[in-house]
Amino acid sequence: MDSVTVDSRHIGILGGGQLARMMALAGIPLGFEFSFLDPSAEACAKSLGSLVQADFADADAASKMAEAIDIATYDFENVPAASATAVAAVKPMYPGVTALEACQDRWVEKNLVAGLDIPVPSFEPVKSRTDLMAACQKLGFPSVLKTRRLGYDGKGQAVLRQQEDMERAWQRFGDFELILESFVPFDAECSVIGVRSLSGEIRFWPVSRNHHVNGVLTLSRAGGLNDQIQAAAEKVGRRLLQHFDYVGIMTVEFFVRDGTLLVNEIAPRVHNSGHWTIDGSTTSQFDNHIRAITGLPLGSTAQTNHALMFNWLGELPDRDALLEVEGLHWHDYGKSPRPGRKLGHATVTAPDAASLQQRANQVANLLGSDWQSQVETVMVEM
Amino acid sequence: MDSVTVDSRHIGILGGGQLARMMALAGIPLGFEFSFLDPSAEACAKSLGSLVQADFADADAASKMAEAIDIATYDFENVPAASATAVAAVKPMYPGVTALEACQDRWVEKNLVAGLDIPVPSFEPVKSRTDLMAACQKLGFPSVLKTRRLGYDGKGQAVLRQQEDMERAWQRFGDFELILESFVPFDAECSVIGVRSLSGEIRFWPVSRNHHVNGVLTLSRAGGLNDQIQAAAEKVGRRLLQHFDYVGIMTVEFFVRDGTLLVNEIAPRVHNSGHWTIDGSTTSQFDNHIRAITGLPLGSTAQTNHALMFNWLGELPDRDALLEVEGLHWHDYGKSPRPGRKLGHATVTAPDAASLQQRANQVANLLGSDWQSQVETVMVEM
Repeated sequence: MDSVTVDSRHIGILGGGQLARMMALAGIPLGFEFSFLDPSAEACAKSLGSLVQADFADADAASKMAEAIDIATYDFENVPAASATAVAAVKPMYPGVTALEACQDRWVEKNLVAGLDIPVPSFEPVKSRTDLMAACQKLGFPSVLKTRRLGYDGKGQAVLRQQEDMERAWQRFGDFELILESFVPFDAECSVIGVRSLSGEIRFWPVSRNHHVNGVLTLSRAGGLNDQIQAAAEKVGRRLLQHFDYVGIMTVEFFVRDGTLLVNEIAPRVHNSGHWTIDGSTTSQFDNHIRAITGLPLGSTAQTNHALMFNWLGELPDRDALLEVEGLHWHDYGKSPRPGRKLGHATVTAPDAASLQQRANQVANLLGSDWQSQVETVMVEM
Repeated sequence: MDSVTVDSRHIGILGGGQLARMMALAGIPLGFEFSFLDPSAEACAKSLGSLVQADFADADAASKMAEAIDIATYDFENVPAASATAVAAVKPMYPGVTALEACQDRWVEKNLVAGLDIPVPSFEPVKSRTDLMAACQKLGFPSVLKTRRLGYDGKGQAVLRQQEDMERAWQRFGDFELILESFVPFDAECSVIGVRSLSGEIRFWPVSRNHHVNGVLTLSRAGGLNDQIQAAAEKVGRRLLQHFDYVGIMTVEFFVRDGTLLVNEIAPRVHNSGHWTIDGSTTSQFDNHIRAITGLPLGSTAQTNHALMFNWLGELPDRDALLEVEGLHWHDYGKSPRPGRKLGHATVTAPDAASLQQRANQVANLLGSDWQSQVETVMVEM
């Protein structure tokens, strides 16, 4: 494969969703142009570059796109390894195939993390009903049965609270390769987003505290977690970034339990919990991802404002009313509504914690009671 | 003309240069799509929307574009009034034709400003050699002869320092309608950018201190001017915004002389001296312009960082080296190099004045001695 040069201008992204769209919005001012490979003719990044409409499994199409670009990346981790490998054979692709593959399989991922002496919830492989029974006996209830591959946003998993849940879950997922994990009765969920440059420099943004509903992120609050948690999260992130000789943005999601961190999962890409960085930090995750993969120096990850991100799922709330809230930034992904679909987000920023709280309350009041309790949860300092 | 509704999604911009490009980059996340009318097939905004390639004087083309969009605006003030009027007859266009026309003619503009009891340099109309002699006698030397129309970035003007300069300037500009202005031996140049919403709300960003070379902006520093200057600039801006029942961004450029302000010129649009707002304030001028013209609530104009903007003229300096400077944000307009052409800018941000000074020095050192003295000039507090 070729290497990154100062004349590299054309970035190809496997995937043309909102993450690719926000990468392009950040990368265009840096002087780059974009192509997106996506199976959908309506891929929401397409207005910001050229769309190559093809199935992700179409390694030939991926390889052909690679010929036309200078540098490749991806906007989700379920790009088939064959397509990623085909691209990487033609042009530099960051993050590399090794990191991508490790994050595609929960079993491989968990073993890798545990092998680096990083705490993870206990886990067991499940290939048969007998395996499942043995694993449940070992880990106890509650525990979580997950497909090893293709799970995201809470899809492909079931919580087992008692003996009877086992058979029901087996009926549902028995055809897949599975993993059983201890259920962690967490005090909080958080994630750290780190970036590593081609020259090996590493930077982290402040950890964001996350809130999920049915496995889907609804809120991310930047800061608000103590220095010990920040330090512990960065230590884990650094070890993983170095392990993979990683280039670009990596996200590590954690459970916080009694002040310690357990890795939940790793995403080898820009992440929903880092969207606040667009409006609340000096350099956004998208900007730094583009800088990293193109060999540019990293930008400052300093937080400039207190920030809380709201995710818009299924339908957009009333933009015009919400923009009345001081410090609210609107991000419409240009996608058509569909139940549960990520259509956009808003980040509320404020110069101090008290005004963030006040603005967050205003937003929650406009959105309704479902949101009020969620906002309360993530706004607690810990 | 129709009115702005919540379903208005399609914005048409007369002009497809870097200002239109940055409006689109800000407006796309707000949920808007863009068309640009521009005579050049290479208009640098075109990758962010649809290009209607037509001469600005082609009122039919402008009118046709207006049919296809919901709301119109413009990215420079020399759109022929006939085209602007044709658009405004079909769709809401902000700022309105009255403001546009007033800013197209220095004589009309100066009279309007003076008529509102806002201080301006003394000025005289010049239609003949005899007029010029009389005006020079009245205003004395040095004074500045300017074409009433189509001047920008120092084009269409000449400083008259002595009797002999008069005839030379007349030879050069005698065919145009002219105005003679007193030369102001200013202590500083600055500009205030204000925005007025459809509902009449007005906000201002901190005044930026500007530095020009040969009439073209090279540096803008946000803040650094005292509260009296800020208050005086806002007072002028407010009066002008209200006078025009203005909607959108307006820029007023001033000379600072012995602590008082004299209006130099008004731009009925987003402005080069406000580019720092992208990286140094809560809501950029581009974002608030789009909000204003679409009837959305205005965003906070609070400054989040100390900021200094460098303009890149004629050729881009070494991006990769400059991005090593902490807090530097790069904005490439995607235009091909040409002597004097505005190709991009960079804004250096910092959490405090001391680190801004340090980072600004780093940039100046990379750029060379021409820039070092300019940076020194704008970094002086006053």
